Amino acid sequence: LTVVRSQLSAWVGAPPAGEIWIGDDAAVVEVPAGPLVLAVDAAVAGVHADLNLVSLADLGWKAMAAAISDIAAMGARPRHALATFCVPPGTDVELLSRGVAEAQAEWSCPVIGGDLTGAEQVVVSIAVTGCLEPPNQPATTRAGASPGDLLFLTGPVGASAAGLRVLRSGRLTRSDTALATAHRRPRARVAEGGAARAAGATAMIDVSDGLARDIHRIAVASGIGIDLDRLPVADGATQEEALGGGEDYELVIAVPPDRAEPMLAAFKDAGLRAPAAIGRCTQHVGQLDLFGQSIAPVGWRHDIG
Amino acid sequence: LTVVRSQLSAWVGAPPAGEIWIGDDAAVVEVPAGPLVLAVDAAVAGVHADLNLVSLADLGWKAMAAAISDIAAMGARPRHALATFCVPPGTDVELLSRGVAEAQAEWSCPVIGGDLTGAEQVVVSIAVTGCLEPPNQPATTRAGASPGDLLFLTGPVGASAAGLRVLRSGRLTRSDTALATAHRRPRARVAEGGAARAAGATAMIDVSDGLARDIHRIAVASGIGIDLDRLPVADGATQEEALGGGEDYELVIAVPPDRAEPMLAAFKDAGLRAPAAIGRCTQHVGQLDLFGQSIAPVGWRHDIG
Repeated sequence: LTVVRSQLSAWVGAPPAGEIWIGDDAAVVEVPAGPLVLAVDAAVAGVHADLNLVSLADLGWKAMAAAISDIAAMGARPRHALATFCVPPGTDVELLSRGVAEAQAEWSCPVIGGDLTGAEQVVVSIAVTGCLEPPNQPATTRAGASPGDLLFLTGPVGASAAGLRVLRSGRLTRSDTALATAHRRPRARVAEGGAARAAGATAMIDVSDGLARDIHRIAVASGIGIDLDRLPVADGATQEEALGGGEDYELVIAVPPDRAEPMLAAFKDAGLRAPAAIGRCTQHVGQLDLFGQSIAPVGWRHDIG
Repeated sequence: LTVVRSQLSAWVGAPPAGEIWIGDDAAVVEVPAGPLVLAVDAAVAGVHADLNLVSLADLGWKAMAAAISDIAAMGARPRHALATFCVPPGTDVELLSRGVAEAQAEWSCPVIGGDLTGAEQVVVSIAVTGCLEPPNQPATTRAGASPGDLLFLTGPVGASAAGLRVLRSGRLTRSDTALATAHRRPRARVAEGGAARAAGATAMIDVSDGLARDIHRIAVASGIGIDLDRLPVADGATQEEALGGGEDYELVIAVPPDRAEPMLAAFKDAGLRAPAAIGRCTQHVGQLDLFGQSIAPVGWRHDIG
């Protein structure tokens, strides 16, 4: 397989005046003054996705969604993406690109540069830049939650893991289609992350490796415990999938009690689904409780397939 | 292999106050006002490097050097890097990281975020951000050269290809060591790129895929031809290696005749090796001549090993 970088340019749009996108040694873009947010995420065929169950387009979409979700989890807005495609000979790069292109349109995050090279296995790595709007308020990290803060979740979880289960079963009923779509085409919660940051959220994380594992990360980073009294399980998913399934990309938001109502009002005003109150932050550092029982921070692990 | 993102944090330095580096969903850095330059480059074991001949540390260095060289070729200064490591079980990630860390120190381009995941084959993808100093002068693209512009090369080429040859031969004489080092530890010409841009270079490219192929890219992008009357061949390399060998990362610089002397003076003032005059730009669009004979734009192709 010969490297043909120009293949990437076929589906990359034209840059605005004064900018340089794919085709030169590097891209040059205008960014607003203020902090720059940067994230990278890789999707590897056989590790993050089974190409017998999902398409190359889905793999491209998933890599974009994962990286953009990392930007969203800081309360930032994605701006530009760089894509690395490593592909075996005969790979349908156009199909792979189509999924990336659909994701770039979905989140207004154009791919402005990239690299295309040979490999034994399909690997897609996506780097994304983002900005904070307004820039004078810091990014929302995992580390700012305090005991007493309320925890919200932007949507039910477990759908991606349940989708993988039904895809593996090979027997999709009509009601399973939504689960399969959740697995194939996860959605980054960009608007929700921005609204939570603007409303004064103290900590935030995206559910990429499972709710239990990811809220445990907030607990460790913030030096708190977490007491869950509600677990929003996606229709058709199990409680285990909701707690341990990865790649849901819903956001967990910690917010002081007095800012919870204004935050919910802001979500409503923006036409966003109301986040569900799922629990609160405690003083028991690193401890997770669900319905009053201690649970382990077990989530999805990316194992070689 | 389980994903352990925290492994990456072991060798990443501490961020300056107000910034967030590895460990949260995304990194947050301060960037100067002005355009942002972005590039990404992947190094795949068996494609870009033979791990029987070079070490994992070399592979990490090579990936960093290639991405930073793309930034240098715009006349920009690298600022921050994001690293994706895809590795088979049992890979010495610490050794791989060491090469990346040595490169980040060499070019003052800290890795501030990354992803580490399983794969069948070692893949390192490096995304780099850069800035233009001063920002009020545009980046130097491949597209600005005009007929009559002089062409310079920042150093002799062919050393990396010759280094691969001597490494493959398995018999390294003392004089071959420099060639092997050129292959294992290529150098991005960051200071040279900045000096050329500041001096008014009209076009620039780094020699990543071979001098003939890369100057042809300037010719096509600028709508010119190129007439070479000198070919600086690295000691121990052949003319074929100098014309067709990749990964030298010397810069080809086009500059109008009246700016050539001031540019050479600026390089000297900065303590940089004097670029060699290698030829001039002509009106014969897309045509390459060497010593008065037409040559093909053949360079190194990244083939699956």
